[in-house]
Amino acid sequence: MKENDKIGRYTFVAEPFHVDFTGRLTLGVLGNHLLNCAGFHANERGFGISSLNEENYTWVLSRLAIELDDMPRQYESFAVWTWVENVYRLFTDRNFALLDKEGRKIGYARSVWAMINIDTRRPVDLMTIHTGGITDYICDEPCPIEKPSRIKVTSTQPVATLRAKYSDIDINGHVNSVRYIEHILDLFPLESYRNGRIRRFEIAYIAESYFGDELTLYQDDLGGGAFDVEIRKNGGEVVCRSKVIFQ
Amino acid sequence: MKENDKIGRYTFVAEPFHVDFTGRLTLGVLGNHLLNCAGFHANERGFGISSLNEENYTWVLSRLAIELDDMPRQYESFAVWTWVENVYRLFTDRNFALLDKEGRKIGYARSVWAMINIDTRRPVDLMTIHTGGITDYICDEPCPIEKPSRIKVTSTQPVATLRAKYSDIDINGHVNSVRYIEHILDLFPLESYRNGRIRRFEIAYIAESYFGDELTLYQDDLGGGAFDVEIRKNGGEVVCRSKVIFQ
Repeated sequence: MKENDKIGRYTFVAEPFHVDFTGRLTLGVLGNHLLNCAGFHANERGFGISSLNEENYTWVLSRLAIELDDMPRQYESFAVWTWVENVYRLFTDRNFALLDKEGRKIGYARSVWAMINIDTRRPVDLMTIHTGGITDYICDEPCPIEKPSRIKVTSTQPVATLRAKYSDIDINGHVNSVRYIEHILDLFPLESYRNGRIRRFEIAYIAESYFGDELTLYQDDLGGGAFDVEIRKNGGEVVCRSKVIFQ
Repeated sequence: MKENDKIGRYTFVAEPFHVDFTGRLTLGVLGNHLLNCAGFHANERGFGISSLNEENYTWVLSRLAIELDDMPRQYESFAVWTWVENVYRLFTDRNFALLDKEGRKIGYARSVWAMINIDTRRPVDLMTIHTGGITDYICDEPCPIEKPSRIKVTSTQPVATLRAKYSDIDINGHVNSVRYIEHILDLFPLESYRNGRIRRFEIAYIAESYFGDELTLYQDDLGGGAFDVEIRKNGGEVVCRSKVIFQ
């Protein structure tokens, strides 16, 4: 397969309710598009949720890192490209590029996925799926941003507490991956977005949370516009950790 | 113009993060699609926000009523049709149909819009726009659901309080119309959605709210799965009223 054919390319328009008060696409909506594109690309190649579900397997997003020079404005078209960078036994690295209406690359993202057995919730050896056929899609398209880092939050003073509600919950009964991003973005005042914008955003998904769970957010201000955030549920278990770097 | 050409038709797919825990499209996402379709349809006919903005006018949504026999499931395609039913001096009625993947009509919606001058926030006489050309688009496509009703909430005991955050705010600096719908849906426990589904939803937008506003929700339980909801800001002014009828 030619390298070029290994890249999935999808176009979108920045809808009015998907931009923030500055008129730029929100990072939560971009995250939604990236995850959808991952699904489209995997489906088109026989590794999508719908074919995996028959085998009782599903993809689980472990980490996501997004780095942006710019964001599409309201009503502008933009494109997301996605491809598989690496496949290991228990993880695969999927990368993304964000292209503006002129076709210029204005951002990149890296994601790490595992496959699990839906019943046992145990990881699946990716080399056993379609006899390792997923490695045929490995592509050397460049993704010039750093890999997701290790995030450690030391603060023990909550900065926000909320309860998981109907709109947070996905078809699996979990708080959905995009909602965590939105709840983290909501920690910051409008000034943060007015005076700058998010240059890099990372999130590591660690445990699931459910309807009615109390989610408590902790934040370390690292200075220079960088913040580490941790979400815990019901006063205990860590659900996810995130790094937000404003420009 | 033939009646058929007066209808805008737009197709979508129910994305994974746009369905709820039952796997059905959420009403908030449907509302987003309806309002986008209103925008597409108006734009294509020279009455969209982008051409109006040059004249310093914009559309304001006043009321929305949605009635549904069913909802698209995850990954299903569906269509929204929209057309103009009536044009009055200060308001226009725009209707919608929701069609499932087989092209069957599974729901309808009615909306009422005003046009305002962006600077003065005063209503604009629709008959003065393009010399009343908007009336050329009036269409007699049937919309067999009741018009939005008058909603009156008597309860003085809050059922929820929240503060308007970054993700709530649109490009105009207001809490966006779809977010109010989501906050109202979040009042109800999962059981309400598990045992039934929303058959009819109405919302009347009365005043704008802004970042940092405290939004307090009041609810009258009318019995039989029907609820009236009112959102007030900062302990006073009514922002919107809604009626939710579960099946």
